[in-house]
Amino acid sequence: MLPHDLLITNATLLATPADGHVQEASYLAVQEGTIVEIGTMADLPPRPAAARAIDAAGNLLLPGLVNCHCHGAMTLFRGLADDLPLMTWLNEHIFPSEARLVDAEMVYWCSKLAAAEMLMGGTTTVADAYFHEDAAAQAFCATGLRAVAAQGIIDFPAPGVPDPTQNIAAAAEFLATWQGKNSLLTPALFCHSPYTCSPDTLQRAKALAREAGSLFFIHLAETREEGRQIKEQHGHTPVGLLHDLGLLDAETICVHCVWLDEEDIGLLRESGAKAVTCPESNMKLGSGIAPLAALRGAGVRVGLGTDGCASNNDLDLFQEMGICARLHKIAAHGPSHLPATTLLGMATGEGSGILGLTGQTGRLAPGLRADCIIVESKQPHPNAVHNPERLVYAGRGSDVSTVIIDGRVVMEERRLLSFDLAETLNEVRRLARRVRAGT
Amino acid sequence: MLPHDLLITNATLLATPADGHVQEASYLAVQEGTIVEIGTMADLPPRPAAARAIDAAGNLLLPGLVNCHCHGAMTLFRGLADDLPLMTWLNEHIFPSEARLVDAEMVYWCSKLAAAEMLMGGTTTVADAYFHEDAAAQAFCATGLRAVAAQGIIDFPAPGVPDPTQNIAAAAEFLATWQGKNSLLTPALFCHSPYTCSPDTLQRAKALAREAGSLFFIHLAETREEGRQIKEQHGHTPVGLLHDLGLLDAETICVHCVWLDEEDIGLLRESGAKAVTCPESNMKLGSGIAPLAALRGAGVRVGLGTDGCASNNDLDLFQEMGICARLHKIAAHGPSHLPATTLLGMATGEGSGILGLTGQTGRLAPGLRADCIIVESKQPHPNAVHNPERLVYAGRGSDVSTVIIDGRVVMEERRLLSFDLAETLNEVRRLARRVRAGT
Repeated sequence: MLPHDLLITNATLLATPADGHVQEASYLAVQEGTIVEIGTMADLPPRPAAARAIDAAGNLLLPGLVNCHCHGAMTLFRGLADDLPLMTWLNEHIFPSEARLVDAEMVYWCSKLAAAEMLMGGTTTVADAYFHEDAAAQAFCATGLRAVAAQGIIDFPAPGVPDPTQNIAAAAEFLATWQGKNSLLTPALFCHSPYTCSPDTLQRAKALAREAGSLFFIHLAETREEGRQIKEQHGHTPVGLLHDLGLLDAETICVHCVWLDEEDIGLLRESGAKAVTCPESNMKLGSGIAPLAALRGAGVRVGLGTDGCASNNDLDLFQEMGICARLHKIAAHGPSHLPATTLLGMATGEGSGILGLTGQTGRLAPGLRADCIIVESKQPHPNAVHNPERLVYAGRGSDVSTVIIDGRVVMEERRLLSFDLAETLNEVRRLARRVRAGT
Repeated sequence: MLPHDLLITNATLLATPADGHVQEASYLAVQEGTIVEIGTMADLPPRPAAARAIDAAGNLLLPGLVNCHCHGAMTLFRGLADDLPLMTWLNEHIFPSEARLVDAEMVYWCSKLAAAEMLMGGTTTVADAYFHEDAAAQAFCATGLRAVAAQGIIDFPAPGVPDPTQNIAAAAEFLATWQGKNSLLTPALFCHSPYTCSPDTLQRAKALAREAGSLFFIHLAETREEGRQIKEQHGHTPVGLLHDLGLLDAETICVHCVWLDEEDIGLLRESGAKAVTCPESNMKLGSGIAPLAALRGAGVRVGLGTDGCASNNDLDLFQEMGICARLHKIAAHGPSHLPATTLLGMATGEGSGILGLTGQTGRLAPGLRADCIIVESKQPHPNAVHNPERLVYAGRGSDVSTVIIDGRVVMEERRLLSFDLAETLNEVRRLARRVRAGT
């Protein structure tokens, strides 16, 4: 028998987080980036030493987390304008800063910083959406993070696309550039919202996505005000508008979905469209609480996203799980509402399903790509712990010691191995001085 | 001039977190545990080298955080019974486990683990409340944490007090043992609640507290059900009952305060009684959202607490600040509601005031004891950051690199110096096996 490329031993295995089942004393073997064997140590066949071996004794081994919505490059605007009313925040701080500072260089370095934060917090797959997404895609490829990268489309002059009549052409070019280029990078499209994209833009973008076989993301039903505005302009709810325009299908991913009525939920269910919830962002901006129970009860698949750093302000999916569970318990006045295993499922298998990556990532099983993380138990707060729910209620990104993506060890003992973090920090600090100089 | 005992240099100083003002390039000097000088590096007088010097270049220096409510020993029950209805959780899991497992040894080791988690998360003062509090007080003294330790009183057989008629006598003995014994340890009393303590017990406990000049803690108005029960039994709201019994004064600290009406808030204001909010615990148990705006608007002082690990499930005040701010923004549908600086104030100066420690801790100024923490900026997520609000929205306990209490360096570069963490972890793991064996 040939030696394995990578062998993880003595792990407490949580292979499918949604079921909460842990298997003590397990091993996982990887060959050419694919999981080839999983079993208990007692059944580990004798074999030549693996090219790389990791002893996970005492620690949890689980699939890497899947962040279903992020604007990575906005790490530059973290903390730029906290605690402000939404329109002041957008119009006086975020939009002007974006107009002044977002270029390909900024997107490259700040997406790389976002990738660093996500990797160091156990996220192995991200669905990112921004302008100059070509630079973001390059950044993700340089870090080893698995990514669905979606080029932004908006009917205003935007970074990289000063003439909005060219927004679909720019998006088409992005798809053409990245399709089939890197196995870890899936290109996609992101229409900003129904209030910043005309029906014509939305339809042309979705047509392009269908033609290319790509995912179509959109911010939808985020605020009550958006609902009022779309109703007034188009006579529909935001979801109703997308339905009316023929945009809802299984490759459409509706991000936020806070203000939905029963009919909206029915339209999402019937079309197979997906939803993503970003509770920390929705809380911090005071937008509202998404009807997760109703969505999930209707059979709509719901992923978990951090949103960007200007409204979250971090990219830690462990915290996002914990806050999401707590928020829905308090909203429903019930401690059994939205249990921890549901959150673990949303942040792994459910997320990968929404992104079309079920065959690659989201759980640990032979045949899937090896995207996994080791969560250590040496700190005080994971002790004494009695179940994997602790990942949701007492976990944080900094508990992750080792990250493996596509079989490659990207982080070990909290040191990033795939790229130079110090260089990225220096570049982002340089850019941050330009933010401060202008405000 | 004599050398300083401790000199911290090159810090970005946040001396009074509630005002959000940072002073770059600052120093702080300590003599015999007291802050003796604060200034900018340019004004640092020439002096012989300090006995201990810490270069905080690039990092934030701020007062240590104050956790106003905790049951430290319940670290043993973390994750024991998540996602369960309140009464199932209490009656089938927590109460039986406590009856079986809580003894002085358990309280000592598990309080020590709690102290480790708090210290490593930047908490320098805790108000703890549990049974066998003598063992908790010993544990806190052994770790260097500043603590208000409150002996639990309940009208049921309790760990250490099998005969409830002896609960006041046991509490009196606790106060007598600890008063004036250790400058970092302030003994106090904790009546569990108005539904587990009779009016007579409450009055006798408060009389004892008054006689001893001690603080009196009580769980109050935590759930809607408690309000119904107290109304039925006593014809008052929980706050109204305490008022009626003459228990409300400036040394009474009411923990939770979720279900209050306007009259309750008026009674708290007029009496000078204090409130403590524990949002993560209230969310996880689905109890409700405390009326913080109304309380604070009325002038009631409100501190922040983690509660115990069975209902939180961690002791990270950074996370607690972030969740508290987000929760009240979403509840009020307003992003400017409960700004970050308010949370920073609650977790520092407001908390120390509530615990009667204003003259010792809660901000950094000459004459106060040196309780301070250094928050590092080497990780991806604090970058790029534009204001101290990042501590609330992107901060976590693991960002704290160094902790100083009473002038003593308790943690440096994330290594605890004051006691043997590995020993504590081993002891708690041994106890945790007993928890598992019984469930």
